Amino acid sequence: MAWQSVPVPRLEGVSQEQFVQHLYPQRKPLVLEGIDLGACTSKWTVDYLSQVGGRKEVKIHVAAVAQMDFIKLYLLISWFRGQLKKSMKNSLFQSILWIQSLLHAAYKDISSYGHQRALVERDEKYYLRSLGEDPRKDVADIRKQFPLLEADIKFPKFFKEEQFFSSVFRISSRGLQLWTHYDVMDNFLIQVTGKKRVVLFSPRDAQYLYLSGTKSEVLDIDNPDLAKYPLFSKARRYECSLKAGDVLFIPALWFHNVISEEFGVGVNIFWKHLPSECYDKTDTYGNKDPTAASRAAQILDRALKTLAELPEEYRDFYARRMVLHIQDKAYSRNFE
Amino acid sequence: MAWQSVPVPRLEGVSQEQFVQHLYPQRKPLVLEGIDLGACTSKWTVDYLSQVGGRKEVKIHVAAVAQMDFIKLYLLISWFRGQLKKSMKNSLFQSILWIQSLLHAAYKDISSYGHQRALVERDEKYYLRSLGEDPRKDVADIRKQFPLLEADIKFPKFFKEEQFFSSVFRISSRGLQLWTHYDVMDNFLIQVTGKKRVVLFSPRDAQYLYLSGTKSEVLDIDNPDLAKYPLFSKARRYECSLKAGDVLFIPALWFHNVISEEFGVGVNIFWKHLPSECYDKTDTYGNKDPTAASRAAQILDRALKTLAELPEEYRDFYARRMVLHIQDKAYSRNFE
Repeated sequence: MAWQSVPVPRLEGVSQEQFVQHLYPQRKPLVLEGIDLGACTSKWTVDYLSQVGGRKEVKIHVAAVAQMDFIKLYLLISWFRGQLKKSMKNSLFQSILWIQSLLHAAYKDISSYGHQRALVERDEKYYLRSLGEDPRKDVADIRKQFPLLEADIKFPKFFKEEQFFSSVFRISSRGLQLWTHYDVMDNFLIQVTGKKRVVLFSPRDAQYLYLSGTKSEVLDIDNPDLAKYPLFSKARRYECSLKAGDVLFIPALWFHNVISEEFGVGVNIFWKHLPSECYDKTDTYGNKDPTAASRAAQILDRALKTLAELPEEYRDFYARRMVLHIQDKAYSRNFE
Repeated sequence: MAWQSVPVPRLEGVSQEQFVQHLYPQRKPLVLEGIDLGACTSKWTVDYLSQVGGRKEVKIHVAAVAQMDFIKLYLLISWFRGQLKKSMKNSLFQSILWIQSLLHAAYKDISSYGHQRALVERDEKYYLRSLGEDPRKDVADIRKQFPLLEADIKFPKFFKEEQFFSSVFRISSRGLQLWTHYDVMDNFLIQVTGKKRVVLFSPRDAQYLYLSGTKSEVLDIDNPDLAKYPLFSKARRYECSLKAGDVLFIPALWFHNVISEEFGVGVNIFWKHLPSECYDKTDTYGNKDPTAASRAAQILDRALKTLAELPEEYRDFYARRMVLHIQDKAYSRNFE
């Protein structure tokens, strides 16, 4: 099935003023071309990164299939936990290579899971996302964790420094597809090397995405199981291809699915759109809902618990009335 | 526009056992024919009622147009308040006649409202719904308020006496249309004399009915303003005609719109479907939501107040997520 999609607009040579005054308030995705990103787009080869990447501990996701999914990842990560600790002492690129060979060695052992025999396939993918020093407390900042790389990259200076939240180093193998999800921060995805295809969905289309937390359950967005996810075809797809040097602006709450068409290095920078106090203080990934939203969700759960005192027929009816009330009181009238 | 509608099934000679065992659990409207209702269907002429109806105080709704609406009624009732007090001392039928002449006399006075000049039209309708002794505390019970009429009518003995909630005496002039609304009790609408057309909607279709409290804002259901109420055409209409002697079972929560095709007298009997403690103790009309539903609605309002701390874009998104959560957790999977 060929999907119709809306191309994400591409703009070249956008100034800080143009962006902040005219583009940013529209809260729509945008590809910025010709932004001065420094030497990284030419310098960051695998050889170079292997040399200067340092000996940081890294966490590498290994996916047996292109569309990473949580359960399989969890099992693999559990399996690798002991081994990974050793790998952490290697440079990040050595780690990747090591993980790859480890994965091959793992076939026999993994098969002892029996019913998960199909977990590991020959075309496994890997994916690195940098973290803070203590991932539970610190945000990722490429300038702190990879100081030798800092001089190579310039962040687009579109926001105030106090809006900065994190900068995340990402390396992904060819074919890797990162599940559709949203972040609560504004996001500049800098494609340093390699190519990506990014499919985005508006926050308005959340109801078609079969969400589980911040993630969509529809993993294979190009060949979705429409019997299982019939509403997915209603979601309007926005799409763009990123080449080295492109910067994709992903507004907070916009869903994005990222497919690496080539091995590539990316950096993404999260910026706060809301006042700092709106965000969850314990959020190091930029994907915990603003505290007011989390509190509202908790209160809603109490309302549903109360409603559960009624028989099904009544619960259903008053749940529908609650939905109408929310739509009336809290939905935006500014439809695009 | 001719509306497609589903005819409400008609069943003759249904026994108590058949009803309770097989029909009642389906929670669908049903016209019962041939139920023994006593002598009322032949005896309750206007003359007879005027004689034996007693000198009860009654409250009569006066509508300037066939589709009663709340604002106009309120103004008329305000205007009549002083006069009505006198009318209360009359028998109910004298009251109706008196109200009619009063209405004519009122044209000049009402016109002093100026901007409400269009309120009173020549084809005004009237409508009586009996109330308890003290309408704020007591439920209507035809057996108590109109003891002289009691012997004439037999209530269908389908439920246990402890399930009885109220019996309501209704008189309506030809052409009167009672707004689409739901009650929280099961309802036997007994057509004693005259003819009615009743249009019903499933509780599942609440989202198409533009509700305000328990009432639909769409007053003219046969010629709705689809520019204002575009979703209304999606509501599935169930329809039936009631003649003298018919009993319409309206399950709790089912919306109903009642059009009097002739001057007629009806009695409806409300029965509790839920355990008594589920209902609002202050409810004398049978239209206050069960307490668990009201509490859930109050809690929801707190959740929405919390959500309102966020800017519109976020509020909209998290409101949509709340809706998805409610649909997931509280909607019935048993779709008809």
